[in-house]
Amino acid sequence: METAEPQKLPQLAADDLDCHSPPWSLAERFSGCRARSLELCSNLETEDYGIQPMPDASPPKWHLAHTTWFFETFLLKPFARDHQAFHPQFEHLFNSYYNGVGHPFPRARRGSLSRPSLAQVLCYRTAVEEGVVQLLAECGEDLHREIAQLVVLGIHHEQQHQELLLTDIKYNFGHNPLYPILVSSPDPKTAPARPLAPMHFAEYAPGLCEVGADLNPDRHFIYDNESPRHQVFIPAFEIANRLVTNGEFLAFIEDGGYTRPDLWLSEGWSTLDRQHPLYWHKDTENGWLEFHLDGLGPLQKDAPVVHVTAFEAMAYAAWAGCRLPTEHEWEVVARAKAQEGNFADQGMWRPLPAQEGNPQFFGDVWEWTSSSYGPYPGYRPLAGVLGEYNGKFMSSQLVLRGGSCATPQDHIRSTYRNFFYPGDGWQFSGLRLARDCT
Amino acid sequence: METAEPQKLPQLAADDLDCHSPPWSLAERFSGCRARSLELCSNLETEDYGIQPMPDASPPKWHLAHTTWFFETFLLKPFARDHQAFHPQFEHLFNSYYNGVGHPFPRARRGSLSRPSLAQVLCYRTAVEEGVVQLLAECGEDLHREIAQLVVLGIHHEQQHQELLLTDIKYNFGHNPLYPILVSSPDPKTAPARPLAPMHFAEYAPGLCEVGADLNPDRHFIYDNESPRHQVFIPAFEIANRLVTNGEFLAFIEDGGYTRPDLWLSEGWSTLDRQHPLYWHKDTENGWLEFHLDGLGPLQKDAPVVHVTAFEAMAYAAWAGCRLPTEHEWEVVARAKAQEGNFADQGMWRPLPAQEGNPQFFGDVWEWTSSSYGPYPGYRPLAGVLGEYNGKFMSSQLVLRGGSCATPQDHIRSTYRNFFYPGDGWQFSGLRLARDCT
Amino acid sequence: METAEPQKLPQLAADDLDCHSPPWSLAERFSGCRARSLELCSNLETEDYGIQPMPDASPPKWHLAHTTWFFETFLLKPFARDHQAFHPQFEHLFNSYYNGVGHPFPRARRGSLSRPSLAQVLCYRTAVEEGVVQLLAECGEDLHREIAQLVVLGIHHEQQHQELLLTDIKYNFGHNPLYPILVSSPDPKTAPARPLAPMHFAEYAPGLCEVGADLNPDRHFIYDNESPRHQVFIPAFEIANRLVTNGEFLAFIEDGGYTRPDLWLSEGWSTLDRQHPLYWHKDTENGWLEFHLDGLGPLQKDAPVVHVTAFEAMAYAAWAGCRLPTEHEWEVVARAKAQEGNFADQGMWRPLPAQEGNPQFFGDVWEWTSSSYGPYPGYRPLAGVLGEYNGKFMSSQLVLRGGSCATPQDHIRSTYRNFFYPGDGWQFSGLRLARDCT
Amino acid sequence: METAEPQKLPQLAADDLDCHSPPWSLAERFSGCRARSLELCSNLETEDYGIQPMPDASPPKWHLAHTTWFFETFLLKPFARDHQAFHPQFEHLFNSYYNGVGHPFPRARRGSLSRPSLAQVLCYRTAVEEGVVQLLAECGEDLHREIAQLVVLGIHHEQQHQELLLTDIKYNFGHNPLYPILVSSPDPKTAPARPLAPMHFAEYAPGLCEVGADLNPDRHFIYDNESPRHQVFIPAFEIANRLVTNGEFLAFIEDGGYTRPDLWLSEGWSTLDRQHPLYWHKDTENGWLEFHLDGLGPLQKDAPVVHVTAFEAMAYAAWAGCRLPTEHEWEVVARAKAQEGNFADQGMWRPLPAQEGNPQFFGDVWEWTSSSYGPYPGYRPLAGVLGEYNGKFMSSQLVLRGGSCATPQDHIRSTYRNFFYPGDGWQFSGLRLARDCT
Repeated sequence: METAEPQKLPQLAADDLDCHSPPWSLAERFSGCRARSLELCSNLETEDYGIQPMPDASPPKWHLAHTTWFFETFLLKPFARDHQAFHPQFEHLFNSYYNGVGHPFPRARRGSLSRPSLAQVLCYRTAVEEGVVQLLAECGEDLHREIAQLVVLGIHHEQQHQELLLTDIKYNFGHNPLYPILVSSPDPKTAPARPLAPMHFAEYAPGLCEVGADLNPDRHFIYDNESPRHQVFIPAFEIANRLVTNGEFLAFIEDGGYTRPDLWLSEGWSTLDRQHPLYWHKDTENGWLEFHLDGLGPLQKDAPVVHVTAFEAMAYAAWAGCRLPTEHEWEVVARAKAQEGNFADQGMWRPLPAQEGNPQFFGDVWEWTSSSYGPYPGYRPLAGVLGEYNGKFMSSQLVLRGGSCATPQDHIRSTYRNFFYPGDGWQFSGLRLARDCT
Repeated sequence: METAEPQKLPQLAADDLDCHSPPWSLAERFSGCRARSLELCSNLETEDYGIQPMPDASPPKWHLAHTTWFFETFLLKPFARDHQAFHPQFEHLFNSYYNGVGHPFPRARRGSLSRPSLAQVLCYRTAVEEGVVQLLAECGEDLHREIAQLVVLGIHHEQQHQELLLTDIKYNFGHNPLYPILVSSPDPKTAPARPLAPMHFAEYAPGLCEVGADLNPDRHFIYDNESPRHQVFIPAFEIANRLVTNGEFLAFIEDGGYTRPDLWLSEGWSTLDRQHPLYWHKDTENGWLEFHLDGLGPLQKDAPVVHVTAFEAMAYAAWAGCRLPTEHEWEVVARAKAQEGNFADQGMWRPLPAQEGNPQFFGDVWEWTSSSYGPYPGYRPLAGVLGEYNGKFMSSQLVLRGGSCATPQDHIRSTYRNFFYPGDGWQFSGLRLARDCT
Repeated sequence: METAEPQKLPQLAADDLDCHSPPWSLAERFSGCRARSLELCSNLETEDYGIQPMPDASPPKWHLAHTTWFFETFLLKPFARDHQAFHPQFEHLFNSYYNGVGHPFPRARRGSLSRPSLAQVLCYRTAVEEGVVQLLAECGEDLHREIAQLVVLGIHHEQQHQELLLTDIKYNFGHNPLYPILVSSPDPKTAPARPLAPMHFAEYAPGLCEVGADLNPDRHFIYDNESPRHQVFIPAFEIANRLVTNGEFLAFIEDGGYTRPDLWLSEGWSTLDRQHPLYWHKDTENGWLEFHLDGLGPLQKDAPVVHVTAFEAMAYAAWAGCRLPTEHEWEVVARAKAQEGNFADQGMWRPLPAQEGNPQFFGDVWEWTSSSYGPYPGYRPLAGVLGEYNGKFMSSQLVLRGGSCATPQDHIRSTYRNFFYPGDGWQFSGLRLARDCT
Repeated sequence: METAEPQKLPQLAADDLDCHSPPWSLAERFSGCRARSLELCSNLETEDYGIQPMPDASPPKWHLAHTTWFFETFLLKPFARDHQAFHPQFEHLFNSYYNGVGHPFPRARRGSLSRPSLAQVLCYRTAVEEGVVQLLAECGEDLHREIAQLVVLGIHHEQQHQELLLTDIKYNFGHNPLYPILVSSPDPKTAPARPLAPMHFAEYAPGLCEVGADLNPDRHFIYDNESPRHQVFIPAFEIANRLVTNGEFLAFIEDGGYTRPDLWLSEGWSTLDRQHPLYWHKDTENGWLEFHLDGLGPLQKDAPVVHVTAFEAMAYAAWAGCRLPTEHEWEVVARAKAQEGNFADQGMWRPLPAQEGNPQFFGDVWEWTSSSYGPYPGYRPLAGVLGEYNGKFMSSQLVLRGGSCATPQDHIRSTYRNFFYPGDGWQFSGLRLARDCT
């Protein structure tokens, strides 16, 4: 036991999460967000925009068009005077999954659309952006609040797709035998030495506390799945001060972790098709290599392990005599930490070793929790078609927390709930250990 | 609102769940349980014992052999002096999923084993039963406690397979165009008139309370997944006084429930392959029919709907402006009810309409909850191979509660957690409505 | 070159293939054939009758019912006065693939029908047999010829299913880890020593000749796919005097035959999922074993290799610097040989080593040819629903010739065309080498 | 019967098929062929080069790279002095199916390679072209013959891929809801009126004749699968004077042709997933439309039906009381016709109505035959790795003859054997009727 005294669970202050107006206008935020999406793609070749190497990894061109479709469909169509659809087929082609907006084009075939070309999609982006800016400028008092809230939602939606852009590009590049490079590696000379912080556990006393947040779009933005704020009882637990590293995960591999069914959930064991995290490669000459968006290089033992499935994360935790935290445990601890870390904004797009004092709750890797993704007590989806945004995915998935090195920093918060199937590993997912108090 | 005042959540008394020794000996319980398995099959033809019409529906012969394998593997092999394996291949053939006992025969191919014959399996049963009875009679003080606990576990294991026998026979018969009959229908003249109780909701105040149970094999039997007893906070909620009926579900169908994606989880909508519960048939002449183990007959509108998936249950609940209860809500309400109902012991093997005063928490149908099947805080699987019994299935499944008309009455309790994938519908599953307090 | 002078191609005499009336009556032939089907099953357990371990391997009970359905559908329904269907559902359940007789029950699900029971199917057989015998006895002059031809067709149809019974039972038993035994092994003491005949090739001169046979049901029985007799030009070729043996095939394996893509057709290479013939097993203690209907035993090197796919047969032939014969080459050589050999009538149901003087053209194993199964020039299917018997399968399959140790001797003839997909190996299929003249 | 007297089968003159040296040099032919590949793609967007909308439809970029790989692998590597591989991974990435050149990159994933970019592939083309031209210029007497033959083979290989380019682009564009256009439609005003020639049949007397051609690379180019020239006996038959048209095929549809299993081979019936040829669309407003590389337009009833599977072709023929010709029947008739027609060179890339006097044996559409694709008697694949070119595909496919509107005119000849699976319809395939003489 590392801590002499269990800590009390951090409680929420009344005004946490309130959105203090940023110093720039909504139109500026909108334009900045839209520009950032293109900036992330600035090193792509035209060919890279169209590829869908697996059903889940949509083409960049599709992301750029779909985020535009979102603004056209939910803002321009209902609110812009005399709005003409940019193209009669785009409503169908770039609808992701909103059954309330007609029949979406099949997800697995997004990569089979060589048209519209990238140039056409960029025109589409420009046209819709002009429409949104004009709408924001011209709409009357009566509509401004509603429209502003939809613009904010669209910005957050686009930020999610900014992360997916990096995630899906990595899948594409990481499965091409040429291992293309999206971004240059940081100069190791200028990088600070980052001695790895030793792992220890903080103990928390049991208690009732509030988690989640209430929808209150005039004060802050949250997704509906984070609401409502509600009480939970959390038993005593311990949680690690940093993420699990590549070196630690390698010890699990070398101890036969992938060959011991007792460490694995049945579903994970029966679907196991590799013996290491997704982008690791064992090279007979060079040992273990790992692919990042700056290329294929030696495995960095002190960096957090990333691109593991929940099954791998849970098997590792079982091997280490621990477990994954619940999403509530994670949240109550994380909300007392500064929301700082290694985000997409840094532009490195790979997780970094934890220095002393950096708890890594935010950024670096999404942290698998043991909590299934379900509705909070009292949950109500948004009204109308936007109710399909989050709620209809509440089965068979697990919650991940904290954002990653591919997440925009101002997109994340302690109540944020990401979700994936436990067998998914292509997103930037890693793990932190927790355990029961003995 | 039907109740003037919200009720307080029923709390657990200290000695709830303790097992008051039944008046018969363990050997008698063991023999009775084993005999009951054969009794359930007494109307089968030899051919019916070998069929596996889908991967999940194992052949009756396999159930009879596997439950025997369980006693041989976990009792006779480690404890019986000079035990000779009944057959060198049976350890492999009848291992269900215990990787710690070697490589199980593939589940989906159980129906391709015409040998051993039924007669050989019955010999196997007899031989192992004799071994267990002898072991119980002869084992010394020092081992008796451990052996007795394993016999009790084996009895509960066999009871689970008794329900699966009925469930899988129903799938077999219900998919044969001849619609064979396992059991004669109750004489309608002798059946009491059962006017359907109107549905109303009881309201419960929020509160902290304990759920689950502690492992304490000297006092009572529970599965490891029900442990440990732990505190949860439950917000205010309302819960219905009875199950949803066929007639109510039919109104959902007739209102287009199966054609409205907004009512469905995405995973349920995309896998939808029928427009009614599993064993319903629409006949152009006779209207809606339903298959039960007493044959194909008219749909009984007052009887509880059964054989719905969790996706169907949730879509129905959404249509009704409600939701499913959580497993904790269910448990705290159910434990204040008498554990009575329509169980397998009655021999009708079909759910019955709720009469006034019968809340149907126990028996009739398993009730889907909205709770994913996961470990309770502080959960520890059993030591050794038996740790594979429950824990390794804790992903992607939902908890069902309360037992069904195919469950042995003394097998169920308020803390009992059954679990299936949300798309499963071949077990005896139905639903009860709950809702948030407004 | 073994033969000093190429032989001339054997030509057909005008009255070859004519059917000299056997000394027993048609009713006797019918009854004998029906009894033989049951006799083949006499060592089965009831459980063995219902199993379908893969979609192609139908349950014995189904074969017994389907052959009965054939007589009921094509004889009793159209011709028997006041015929009552034995069971209203049997027309659907036991229709194999005749779309002209309604919608057949799905092939892959035949093994999921535990009812009708075996006893009911045996009653069905008896009832239909009585009907057919009565029909033969009572039908007038005018119909007798037509009815007799249908009875003969039904007998040949049932003989095909007799072979399938043995083939499918072998698949069932050969995939059960218990390796059940259908028939006792011949006593090795009484078996004649059978020194293997050395392989040599006979050379045939090129020439025009007639192959096939004309439909002429008053003189002989043939299937429509053997007709019409027609001229073909056959270039010079050589053909082996006996089948390829296990020992010879083992040399191919040991020479890396399964690891050299240059020996294989692309389709065979890409679907390769084993490294030896279907029922071979390599045992670390005992070396190579082979399963036959008399059990699992040591590989007999002199016996013909059996249960190879056409891809395996062609890879072997390529390795040996040879090829498979065409069906025409086979036919013109075989028709000059006595139609003797090791057939199902012998009751050993395994191929035997070739003794000197036994060319093995008939019996032992079906011989893969390089000829795709297509219509002969001028081919016309039978009129009506029976036109579906053969013609609709004329795509993507290859012709096999000569019958096997599971074929009734009086079922085969030199013009007989069996057909399977090149990847099929569960039937009794082997190979004979041929080659071009150099 | 249209012809008073059956015609004699056209026999081959001794020097048919000899290759009279074209007036341009081999280097010129090579360069022209290479330039033509790029010319076909000149209207593509960069995005169009990378798409693989189904496993069989490879990306244009892949075709451009693979044809280059062919020259690098089979010419530059063995013969060019000091040849440096253009890129160490290209041998793997652009190997189509030559197991003798290592492990090919998986076919179905060709569309997941966004790199190398199109620009890199074009550099690859240029570099290899320079190498080949230099090799041709510099190689000594001793090697020139061998090298020239490989260059000729590479040209014919590239021509095959030129047709595949058009075929695969059509699949891509024809499955995109935007229906992109590759080529402008011919101006209808300048198009000659093309009254459809009425269909009649020419009768041929039975006879022995030679088909195929001998490999003789000093005189002409053929593929190994066309050799050797050999005798066949062809019974009397009749064959139509032109292709089946859209209008005729529409009559089949309207007569219920897609709903009558008796017209279909079993394999075709069970895999049927549309009720019209591949690129037909039924529009409620405009009736039947057809997609061609000049866009979506009204169905032209007089144009030949195209993009039918062999199953559709055979069902149509059965409905019309006819059959498909064999490849030998086709060849002996076609070789007496002028090798003229509507080829890729015309640049229309759609089949045209038959004018009087145009028998359409060459160009317009590939004609399905009833002949399975197998080795001719005495067939020997090319030595070495190039033996994988044709021979290993000789299973389960059918032969098509005559070339199409997407085939380069100087690529085709009367002995040319194309081959596809009977269920394939994305290539430019149609049919001509034949029938037995009555």
